[in-house]
Amino acid sequence: MIISPQFKKNILKAVLKYGTPSYIYSKDILEDNIYKYKKSFRDVNVLFCYALKANSNRVLLKIISKNGFGADVVSIGEMLSALSSGFDKKKIIFSGVGKTYEELSVAADKEILFINVESFEELKVLSKISVLKNKNIGFSIRINPNVDPHTHKYISTGKYGSKFGVSAKEAFEMYKWAKKNKFLVPIAVHFHLGSQIFKYEAYLQAFLKVEQLIKKLKCLGINIRIIDLGGGWGVKEGEVMTPPDKLAAFLSTKKENYSFIMEPGRSIVSSCGFFVVKTLYRKKSGVRQIVITDGGMNDFVRPSLYGARHPVINLNGSNSIVNNFIDIYGPVCESGDFLAKNVNMKVPDRGNLLCFLSAGAYGYSMSSNYNLRRKPAEILVSGKDIKLIRKRQNYEDFLEN
Amino acid sequence: MIISPQFKKNILKAVLKYGTPSYIYSKDILEDNIYKYKKSFRDVNVLFCYALKANSNRVLLKIISKNGFGADVVSIGEMLSALSSGFDKKKIIFSGVGKTYEELSVAADKEILFINVESFEELKVLSKISVLKNKNIGFSIRINPNVDPHTHKYISTGKYGSKFGVSAKEAFEMYKWAKKNKFLVPIAVHFHLGSQIFKYEAYLQAFLKVEQLIKKLKCLGINIRIIDLGGGWGVKEGEVMTPPDKLAAFLSTKKENYSFIMEPGRSIVSSCGFFVVKTLYRKKSGVRQIVITDGGMNDFVRPSLYGARHPVINLNGSNSIVNNFIDIYGPVCESGDFLAKNVNMKVPDRGNLLCFLSAGAYGYSMSSNYNLRRKPAEILVSGKDIKLIRKRQNYEDFLEN
Repeated sequence: MIISPQFKKNILKAVLKYGTPSYIYSKDILEDNIYKYKKSFRDVNVLFCYALKANSNRVLLKIISKNGFGADVVSIGEMLSALSSGFDKKKIIFSGVGKTYEELSVAADKEILFINVESFEELKVLSKISVLKNKNIGFSIRINPNVDPHTHKYISTGKYGSKFGVSAKEAFEMYKWAKKNKFLVPIAVHFHLGSQIFKYEAYLQAFLKVEQLIKKLKCLGINIRIIDLGGGWGVKEGEVMTPPDKLAAFLSTKKENYSFIMEPGRSIVSSCGFFVVKTLYRKKSGVRQIVITDGGMNDFVRPSLYGARHPVINLNGSNSIVNNFIDIYGPVCESGDFLAKNVNMKVPDRGNLLCFLSAGAYGYSMSSNYNLRRKPAEILVSGKDIKLIRKRQNYEDFLEN
Repeated sequence: MIISPQFKKNILKAVLKYGTPSYIYSKDILEDNIYKYKKSFRDVNVLFCYALKANSNRVLLKIISKNGFGADVVSIGEMLSALSSGFDKKKIIFSGVGKTYEELSVAADKEILFINVESFEELKVLSKISVLKNKNIGFSIRINPNVDPHTHKYISTGKYGSKFGVSAKEAFEMYKWAKKNKFLVPIAVHFHLGSQIFKYEAYLQAFLKVEQLIKKLKCLGINIRIIDLGGGWGVKEGEVMTPPDKLAAFLSTKKENYSFIMEPGRSIVSSCGFFVVKTLYRKKSGVRQIVITDGGMNDFVRPSLYGARHPVINLNGSNSIVNNFIDIYGPVCESGDFLAKNVNMKVPDRGNLLCFLSAGAYGYSMSSNYNLRRKPAEILVSGKDIKLIRKRQNYEDFLEN
């Protein structure tokens, strides 16, 4: 991914004004990613439900909802956030393995499009709520297609043994059981394979299993015409998304029979985000060249938690590759607090601003106050316009209880 | 670790009143851990500086400071929190590899006991600040003793290649350099080996290296009589701390020459904390028995991040061991969100409350709002008294920006 000199200048301006560590987002890249999805699937009837868990900054949410997207939410917090950020309630779906009674109840009250049910027990709770409220509730069932998407074990979700969904066989029994309650309205069949999937063949395999289920349900008089393919389309750190054109072409062969839902998250926001930290200190430890910055695992946990490797550039220093390998750490008091290891770059000077690419997804959304550190600021760059869209937390927040 | 029937009853009472997921702390166990330290080291002149990063709930901090402990802080946030929770400023030390100019400056203003310097560059910044402020600043230097404490790689800190401290050789040069600035007052030599150390021999090795350094410094006219041994004394999940009596006995052979600082964190608060979640749904996935609860990795990340295994008991259901292995998950939308795997226990009923032991350290302090989930509540149990010491977050907090 190449950052234009103008955009680099704007990132610099933004952090000089609002400090480090900060997340900087590009509105242009965000809208470009949205446009790519629309373009790839232009021949198909598809509702895109943006997965809020990737990044739920409300200014970004408003941009995404304005572009016609729906929302995939996984908690009351996300549901309320989506509803108040311009998403149409009839474009909101509620997923997640552990929805509480309260959460299902609020979802019913808000009359969202449907609830993705993940277990028979959840379906029974939902049924009870629909009867108590005397109210129709749309639902889908998430099936676990037992397909291996060849991704990190923490983000693979569609294999047996995972906590997600139910088998196609159990789903069949669940749809059948739900038929006895007129308030439960079957809207879709759902599957989700995991994250960071680069081959459309995984979707294909799962799709065919779902289609079989839909045909069986038809014999019971249950007609489902929406297939929710979940999210998970991959985007490599430091690169822009490769449009899922093959998947789109496949779906277009099925468009007479079905409408579709997709739940892109990471692929929409990852490449539009940049995490910028300041170089504080350099030192040697044994043979290692250590660089300490002011941004740590509490701000950006992906390197520690998933071993994610995000490319890094020096915004105001040398970027020459000099066959010199450095380890970039944060200030948090544990060895696991690193941002990148074995990076081939010149040792940055004190004060140099290091910019990690593809930090728009699962960056701020996973941040914490570990070490009683404040959560970072978030800034939106749109053309020449630089706007603070979430201010850095106050120390006072730590002194309240 | 055995929980008394009375205390179990109180945990149940607490969660029935304040809901799940919640952290419950026992004041008795906390004070017992504090007492154990005092007892073990009763023959030695030692200042215990509690490491706030383990748990910085301010009600717990007040209990710890009332018991005469000092504080080991690693950020301005922790420093302000310690100062306003009853810790004497002359018992506060400031550690961490990435202290910013602002943080060092505030530490100088607050006149804390000393700053643990982690690099030559940091020492130079501190020197500049002392001159600008025309003010004495106490400091120690953290040496990396290159000792392997045989612990998890993420929590081992005292080997070459780690980001922590400097070599004894460099520390010597730094103390010598600092001597030129009358405002820089050398107070101690510091080392820290890592976390979860169970053998005192590791401390012994490091201690002897530090002693050599102190002798060399004496030849330069730099007299240091305080050795800061850091923290890291281990405590196994589900057990109470084994008192560090052997370490204490060793230190007492050195008590004519030195005073000591210790920085216990986990060993003080781990066993006093309990993380309680509610069973929402059960299902099979392939051969696995899955149990979904309402508490997840955003609340308690240790199982995901470190592979920590915390024993679990069912507070209001069966605890019989039945050769039945279950996986306990949270509601967060990723496979990495588990609380325990392969637990030998009867499948809990819906609504059963599961209590994870030894959750007092690095539990709440690492919690986040991932999936826009609210941070859990914290409750203190003291005898019969049950007190909410941090209320569950509001959904409204997510709608502010």
